[in-house]
Amino acid sequence: MEKIKFSELENYFDKEIEVSGFIENIRVLQYVIFIVLKDKYGKLQVTIEKEDENNSKLVEIASNLTLDSTVKIKGILKQNPKVKLNGMELIPSCIEVTSKSLEELPINYKDLANTLIDTRLDNRMLDLRNERNNYIFRIQSDLIRNLRDTLYNKDFMEIHTPKLIGAASESGSEVFEVKYFERLAYLAQSPQFYKQMAMASGFEKIFEVGPVFRAENSNTNRHATEFTSFDVEFSYINSFSDVMDLEEEMITNGLAFIKEKYGDKIKELFNVDVVVPTRPFPRVKLNDLYKELESLYGYKAEGEDLYDLSSEGEKLAARYAMDKYNSEFIFITGYPAEKRAFYHMRDDDGLLNGYDLIWKGTEITTGAQREHRYEVLKRQAEEKGLKEDIKFYLDFFKYGCPPHGGFGLGVDRLTLVLLEIPVKEAMFIFRGPNRLNP
Amino acid sequence: MEKIKFSELENYFDKEIEVSGFIENIRVLQYVIFIVLKDKYGKLQVTIEKEDENNSKLVEIASNLTLDSTVKIKGILKQNPKVKLNGMELIPSCIEVTSKSLEELPINYKDLANTLIDTRLDNRMLDLRNERNNYIFRIQSDLIRNLRDTLYNKDFMEIHTPKLIGAASESGSEVFEVKYFERLAYLAQSPQFYKQMAMASGFEKIFEVGPVFRAENSNTNRHATEFTSFDVEFSYINSFSDVMDLEEEMITNGLAFIKEKYGDKIKELFNVDVVVPTRPFPRVKLNDLYKELESLYGYKAEGEDLYDLSSEGEKLAARYAMDKYNSEFIFITGYPAEKRAFYHMRDDDGLLNGYDLIWKGTEITTGAQREHRYEVLKRQAEEKGLKEDIKFYLDFFKYGCPPHGGFGLGVDRLTLVLLEIPVKEAMFIFRGPNRLNP
Repeated sequence: MEKIKFSELENYFDKEIEVSGFIENIRVLQYVIFIVLKDKYGKLQVTIEKEDENNSKLVEIASNLTLDSTVKIKGILKQNPKVKLNGMELIPSCIEVTSKSLEELPINYKDLANTLIDTRLDNRMLDLRNERNNYIFRIQSDLIRNLRDTLYNKDFMEIHTPKLIGAASESGSEVFEVKYFERLAYLAQSPQFYKQMAMASGFEKIFEVGPVFRAENSNTNRHATEFTSFDVEFSYINSFSDVMDLEEEMITNGLAFIKEKYGDKIKELFNVDVVVPTRPFPRVKLNDLYKELESLYGYKAEGEDLYDLSSEGEKLAARYAMDKYNSEFIFITGYPAEKRAFYHMRDDDGLLNGYDLIWKGTEITTGAQREHRYEVLKRQAEEKGLKEDIKFYLDFFKYGCPPHGGFGLGVDRLTLVLLEIPVKEAMFIFRGPNRLNP
Repeated sequence: MEKIKFSELENYFDKEIEVSGFIENIRVLQYVIFIVLKDKYGKLQVTIEKEDENNSKLVEIASNLTLDSTVKIKGILKQNPKVKLNGMELIPSCIEVTSKSLEELPINYKDLANTLIDTRLDNRMLDLRNERNNYIFRIQSDLIRNLRDTLYNKDFMEIHTPKLIGAASESGSEVFEVKYFERLAYLAQSPQFYKQMAMASGFEKIFEVGPVFRAENSNTNRHATEFTSFDVEFSYINSFSDVMDLEEEMITNGLAFIKEKYGDKIKELFNVDVVVPTRPFPRVKLNDLYKELESLYGYKAEGEDLYDLSSEGEKLAARYAMDKYNSEFIFITGYPAEKRAFYHMRDDDGLLNGYDLIWKGTEITTGAQREHRYEVLKRQAEEKGLKEDIKFYLDFFKYGCPPHGGFGLGVDRLTLVLLEIPVKEAMFIFRGPNRLNP
């Protein structure tokens, strides 16, 4: 029989049931012992009358219980309006201690306000018992489920590309080396090349959700050395507008689903209003954006900014999107090709046929139409100094390949922007240059 | 507008449409040119009358077309019973060559019977254009989708655990080393420890689909250095029977879905009958199985066999399951703990509270109830000589942890047993000791 969820107890009044959970609280009073049990779905009070002589065994067990141990309890569930906790209590006949908490907890997971994030991560198994932290991953799981569903409904298929690769491809400087028997291998920074291979193979529409690895030795709030990427690629597009359309649809569906299921809980736990965006999201060319930012907010883009938004630029772009379009999202297009990967398609002015998507001031995606024409792609690669290492990739395009495009979304990035939390909280287990544990 | 699928063309008779696809065939005859276009869903004949003077441009383009190039064609779709291919043809007004196949193909993907598997893998982007190979991954994607759905419907959530780990945990000998800034990291052989951490954190029911890495320097038909693992773990089980029940349900649902959607295609392309199993699958203790195998087939288990089935034993177990139970599946329980991982729970006789699942003679899963009691787990680890490296893992169990169990399924293994193909065909891109490309 499946375990009874504490959110479904009202179906069992006056029945003998078996419940399991963590010990959330114990109060031993003169005539009675109250135990509060907790599972993923809620809490339940267990009441033991000390004077009832049938209860001597139960009283003994309950007196030795430690908080955070787990128990399995048999008993009759009674409706009782006097019980503050859901108006019900379990009158137990049998308590089995299924695991015992042996030590005082190194962190108080019920109140983490004053606990350093690194201490929390050192004790992540306890940190995640915190209700708010637990919800982060329930929400993340449901969001990804919904993003996948939008794709399945359009007949996309899921692929699994290798993370061990033979050449440090996209940019040699930030790649992890692996000792691979008598030679070196590298950890994939993205499934980019392989998802494009699927296009050359006629798969037409694919996605992948999997880990990617970045050997960046920097400690910021947003960068991890390993994170989960949601990558999408599809063929026979007419332009990168098709890519923006798809991403917009996925995100809108996803947020509608999350708002419906978790909107109130997210407000309660994170003080964040989930806003379901209206489509289309605003789409602005980088140059036009800079004109607007200058005239509206006196922002002058210079130097590196002319190729890509700085984080101040991202914040202002978000402000502009909100002021002008009442939108948390804004697509920015028309980036110069110079600082971008060689595999993006370019227009006649040397601008990318691609975009970044900014959500609440944070870039969550780069998407584009890809260059699928062998000769052009080869030239663009050579301009970036890439040759031998990517020969295997260029070969994908020698024998015909449909026009295609796609994008990648960081699962953790999405989560942190949605809930407005730091990246170290948005990952089940964070990995950074100084953190390989737990 | 989304691209029209070639399986849905009959909705567009006598309309002007735009179609895209690969050039599957070209026949230039005296008065007419036939082009056959192909997409993921089917084929379409395009007919160009050479004598029609409006067609001079089209004739010129078509005459220069190479096989496997991709095109976008505008035209009117006509029903024509004389056309063998689906009784329809497109009368084009405009042909755009969207990519050109530049060279003679290094393999003939339409007939791979005489092509070595390694040559095929070297040219995987073409190999996967083969219809049969393409279907392998459509089927795999749908199977995994369905396995996930069974879990989502039971309120399981998906987690993403790190693949970079700080200690070579489960067995140091077969783990890949990664240069991680100033120290070493390792690639996870399984998400075992982290999915159990989720249990200690009160997540209750989780799964993960992701890569795992094994540094085994062996070339067999079944072993890859990297593969995709579908891992499941859930709390508050009463015994490992609950784990078998869940796995059985997932597989039965999955195969029912695949048979319904692809049964005929699998028969046509792979000559395999998809059989939807009946539940429960037979469950036999190892000792009892050996008695049966001896009396029925004269098989005598000795040496290593007494701890685990040899591949001959697996084949005979499958024969026994078929002979006695008419089942492709058989659960084998009652393995001695000696040769198994320390984290499995054991019974009073030193046998595992766990199982292997054999499908058509191949082991596809190991599942078990886990040892969740700190002191017992610590002792079992020490018996295997494990101490410092797994301290972080043992700590998960110090502060209470519900009884739990789970299993892992190889996505590629499932695919290869389902379709009766070699592992190198069942992986999108195979990785072995001698293969890091493409």
